[in-house]
Amino acid sequence: MSLYPYLDQIQYPEDLRKLKETELPLVCKDLREFIIDTLAGIGGHFASNLGVVELTVALHYVFNTPVDRLIWDVGHQTYPHKILTGRKGQLSTVRKWGGLSGFPKREESKYDLYNTGHAGTSISQALGEACARDLVGKDYKVVSVIGDASIATGMALEAMNHGGHVKPNMLVILNDNYMSISKNVGSISNYLNNIISSQIYNKWKMVFYRFLKWLPLVGPALESIAHNMESSMKHFMMTPGGLFEDLGFTYYGPIDGHDVGRLVQMLQNLVKIDGPVLLHVLTQKGKGYKPAEADPIKYHGVTPFNKEDGKMASADSNKISLSKIVGKTLSDLTDKYPNTAVITPAMIEGSGLRDYQEKYPNHTFDVGIAEQHSVAFAGAMTSAGVIPYMCIYSTFLTRGMDQLVEDVSLMNLPVRFVIDRAGIVGADGETHQGLSDLGYLAGLPNMDIIVPSSAQDIIDCLHFMATYTDAPISIRFPKDNGDLRELKFENPNVIEKGKARVLAEGNDLLLISVGSMLPIAKQVQKDLEAKGKKVGLIDLFWLRPFDKTTIERLLGDVGRFAILDESYVHSGASGYLLNEIHPKYLSKFLKTFALPAEPIHHGERSQVLSHYRLNSEGIVEEILRIL
Amino acid sequence: MSLYPYLDQIQYPEDLRKLKETELPLVCKDLREFIIDTLAGIGGHFASNLGVVELTVALHYVFNTPVDRLIWDVGHQTYPHKILTGRKGQLSTVRKWGGLSGFPKREESKYDLYNTGHAGTSISQALGEACARDLVGKDYKVVSVIGDASIATGMALEAMNHGGHVKPNMLVILNDNYMSISKNVGSISNYLNNIISSQIYNKWKMVFYRFLKWLPLVGPALESIAHNMESSMKHFMMTPGGLFEDLGFTYYGPIDGHDVGRLVQMLQNLVKIDGPVLLHVLTQKGKGYKPAEADPIKYHGVTPFNKEDGKMASADSNKISLSKIVGKTLSDLTDKYPNTAVITPAMIEGSGLRDYQEKYPNHTFDVGIAEQHSVAFAGAMTSAGVIPYMCIYSTFLTRGMDQLVEDVSLMNLPVRFVIDRAGIVGADGETHQGLSDLGYLAGLPNMDIIVPSSAQDIIDCLHFMATYTDAPISIRFPKDNGDLRELKFENPNVIEKGKARVLAEGNDLLLISVGSMLPIAKQVQKDLEAKGKKVGLIDLFWLRPFDKTTIERLLGDVGRFAILDESYVHSGASGYLLNEIHPKYLSKFLKTFALPAEPIHHGERSQVLSHYRLNSEGIVEEILRIL
Repeated sequence: MSLYPYLDQIQYPEDLRKLKETELPLVCKDLREFIIDTLAGIGGHFASNLGVVELTVALHYVFNTPVDRLIWDVGHQTYPHKILTGRKGQLSTVRKWGGLSGFPKREESKYDLYNTGHAGTSISQALGEACARDLVGKDYKVVSVIGDASIATGMALEAMNHGGHVKPNMLVILNDNYMSISKNVGSISNYLNNIISSQIYNKWKMVFYRFLKWLPLVGPALESIAHNMESSMKHFMMTPGGLFEDLGFTYYGPIDGHDVGRLVQMLQNLVKIDGPVLLHVLTQKGKGYKPAEADPIKYHGVTPFNKEDGKMASADSNKISLSKIVGKTLSDLTDKYPNTAVITPAMIEGSGLRDYQEKYPNHTFDVGIAEQHSVAFAGAMTSAGVIPYMCIYSTFLTRGMDQLVEDVSLMNLPVRFVIDRAGIVGADGETHQGLSDLGYLAGLPNMDIIVPSSAQDIIDCLHFMATYTDAPISIRFPKDNGDLRELKFENPNVIEKGKARVLAEGNDLLLISVGSMLPIAKQVQKDLEAKGKKVGLIDLFWLRPFDKTTIERLLGDVGRFAILDESYVHSGASGYLLNEIHPKYLSKFLKTFALPAEPIHHGERSQVLSHYRLNSEGIVEEILRIL
Repeated sequence: MSLYPYLDQIQYPEDLRKLKETELPLVCKDLREFIIDTLAGIGGHFASNLGVVELTVALHYVFNTPVDRLIWDVGHQTYPHKILTGRKGQLSTVRKWGGLSGFPKREESKYDLYNTGHAGTSISQALGEACARDLVGKDYKVVSVIGDASIATGMALEAMNHGGHVKPNMLVILNDNYMSISKNVGSISNYLNNIISSQIYNKWKMVFYRFLKWLPLVGPALESIAHNMESSMKHFMMTPGGLFEDLGFTYYGPIDGHDVGRLVQMLQNLVKIDGPVLLHVLTQKGKGYKPAEADPIKYHGVTPFNKEDGKMASADSNKISLSKIVGKTLSDLTDKYPNTAVITPAMIEGSGLRDYQEKYPNHTFDVGIAEQHSVAFAGAMTSAGVIPYMCIYSTFLTRGMDQLVEDVSLMNLPVRFVIDRAGIVGADGETHQGLSDLGYLAGLPNMDIIVPSSAQDIIDCLHFMATYTDAPISIRFPKDNGDLRELKFENPNVIEKGKARVLAEGNDLLLISVGSMLPIAKQVQKDLEAKGKKVGLIDLFWLRPFDKTTIERLLGDVGRFAILDESYVHSGASGYLLNEIHPKYLSKFLKTFALPAEPIHHGERSQVLSHYRLNSEGIVEEILRIL
């Protein structure tokens, strides 16, 4: 007998819709088992997917997808959706090179409407879909699903402000699991918790829901009376969801997101209501798998694990992520400089700051998924002599671009930007690539930029930055590890501003390596030397101010030069360098080895580099071809 | 006798603070007269400054500025503030080259804490200031002023979400004049209007305010009782400002923002309340000057006018702004393609869309000051075959950078970006310069970019873009005018994708002109020819795809080449071109004529260009020096 008898009947949502409502809990059971079994073998986003099993089934059961438009936010919780929309057999390839994306992807399926990854986009997109539909006179449904952390992000609130004014028919599902990746912060989060704990008004609302179910039978007249009744009640009682009602949405909830029958009933009723509606659904991350229910943070993203006890393979104890190196160093710096502050937009875990936060709760400012605010906030924190380190992923810093320009750089405020996940990001793929930051940063007035090439460099740079107040300053580094046995947290090396490192000299070719490309650049240098070429190598280290003296001295003596940069070619170090290097040396320019201007898919960094011939073999081959 | 006897006594806020409370209305009267008299002569931001006279006086009277921190949002309403903080004598230079900035500016005064210009930053900055103060154990006050349009912007809402959670002592003044530059949109705006019209709860609150006034006399025990009383009341009655209370702020108001005595009392009381407080103040744009009260949109920014009747000099009737050319063309296009949509983030007026909106209200989507949302919304509008034109200023598009990357470019959604105020922006100055867009756009996968060099080009491009669905596409153009007599709205010229225009050929030097630099480039070409040089000239027209064939053909025959680009040198067309042009031609690269990476001050475009030697004389001189 099959392990998943109900799931086996479903290839596409139309198969699901043929089932009886009473069979849906059995589909959910299979779906959950299938996810646990598959991810135990390969790892991936886990707890959030277990949390939306019932919701996903209910949505595809009630709505006529893909004619009705179902839009996900962030999208790492779309494994159940992928399974129900023709991709069950490929789930085992998720997040691997050439396999399924861990996020919705238009190229994969017509059921995936948007490629997502960044938080808070779905209400904007649902509103755009609804307005477009109304402009051309169509009548399908539009529904979006957004998490409780994402809904507090600026663009989601902007979208509600707009949607509550325009008032097209659309349904927003607030999938409230009380957390983003870490525990949620922010007054909206507090507010949602208050709703859940306050049940006075809810009881009345429950009566109303039951009544509402019969509305289609009794006709529009009574419906209008019912709405008036509800509306007048609101003036006399505290409404849960008043915040959303103030924003122009009709609020329903909270309801149990693991009761698939209830969800189906509710959705069937809500699609009949005019205007923008928000349904507040309570779900539990990790639902149905005990270890994940107990520790949803740990099981947010998993490596392969033992299904029986949830144990994941333990990592090499000498390895430490670059993020954790940052956390540890910032802790050392706060010991030394008590006016240090660390800012993160909802990335305590990913940025290696858990221990820091425990030790220094008053110095830790987790602002929520609020990159725009975080940057301006960091700028203002430079007042009163505070030293703000702004820890952020490269891909998310783009959300704060305007604030980088206006609220930091133009005023030359000494914010210290610590940019993690720069370069090729690996399994998260195209929406998370950190391939643009150098280009953007180099375009800013006043911004200084260091591109460390080793784990020790990061420690040294963070120390240097503590007392550096000439200008705002950034370091960027990839998703990688250091080796604890090689790291010097105490007595770090002293950094000299604006000095590049000459690692080798040679007259045939000069390689200018930017940050994380150094190990590959070293291999290229070695391989070319082995083929009889005289090859110089510079570890750039400072992009701005860049070491014009050293670089132009070497350029004077060399035949050609190439740049190696883990960025998009048009948004990396290359444009900056070609503008800064004296034009008389540009005749020697051979090529920039960087990523082309196209979406860069998920996969291991080595696979991506190899695909684009940016590994040492590819670069050597291309250099020899040109020379 | 002096025209402004009370104002004459005030050089700095400390002088103001020596006056009796009863004298403040007289100060306000003088201040208002002084602003009207000065701006009648020179023009500038007008209606919003008249609206905050009493508020500004009350703030500097109650708070010990600059020790207490007073933070403005946007800042075009800071003329009264500038007058009261030592800059009365310079107001007549405002927005002129070398004169006062039209916005707060740190270089001008220690009373200006932040250089502002973009909306919605002040709550983030106030929160940063308050958290920094608390971290180092100081106890000054922090107060910020934000408008009713700005508070609905994403980053302001993010800041409230954070502030309502962290809860430092800080005061946010909501300066509610029912509009941004144009009429406000959005559910928060509706919500504020509802507060104003609903007075039930207010009456109770008024009693409470009167009681509150006596609190300092009766001590903390009673204060705590009073707070409990208020808090329990809230559970039984509709609270105005419940939205802000849900966000963790204590709400007071609305109060009359033109009653300076009332404002002073209120501020004196509110600073004694713990945690984040929001005071809702009602003001009228243009207050005290009849023509401006009657038409605050017209009097938002003025040219010199007759004080008696408010008449401004009428413009040349043949001149039409490039923005209005866009509005007219989009109207023609909507006649032709009924699935056209036009999106603007609160810039109906500035983007020349007033007539369009009147003719096509259902096709006009004014999303509020919500650039992030606007871009994702535009991306989603491409569904159902809608043709979305996203009209935005270059400087504000930066707010939507992440959405440009994630929600448009990576998915190759054919949004049509119409980027106004690109290049040197003139009197608004450094926070509004449009000098980065080309660099950012060229860094995006899939984005095509046209750089029109004439008013007619813009018409032609907009027509071309209507049916262009290969990729997202942008045009960018400066704040400038066209001549109606020369424009062809009907039967526009047909554009060929990716074709540059060769205007002259010559072997000594090739000038590659990007968009708005064309008139200067033509002059340079002429002047150099007059000096015996053979000078070619290309109007680039397409930055991407760029016309490699044509450009490299010319580069093969020429001695040197230079790029002319009205951008920051490190965030313009130059980096892109130097990476795209085959390296073998780079030995001929002479220089990019562009703005340096530093804040570019306000002043007329010709003054700025001349300062940086980017006018034809400067460029010719530099070219001859190098050649």
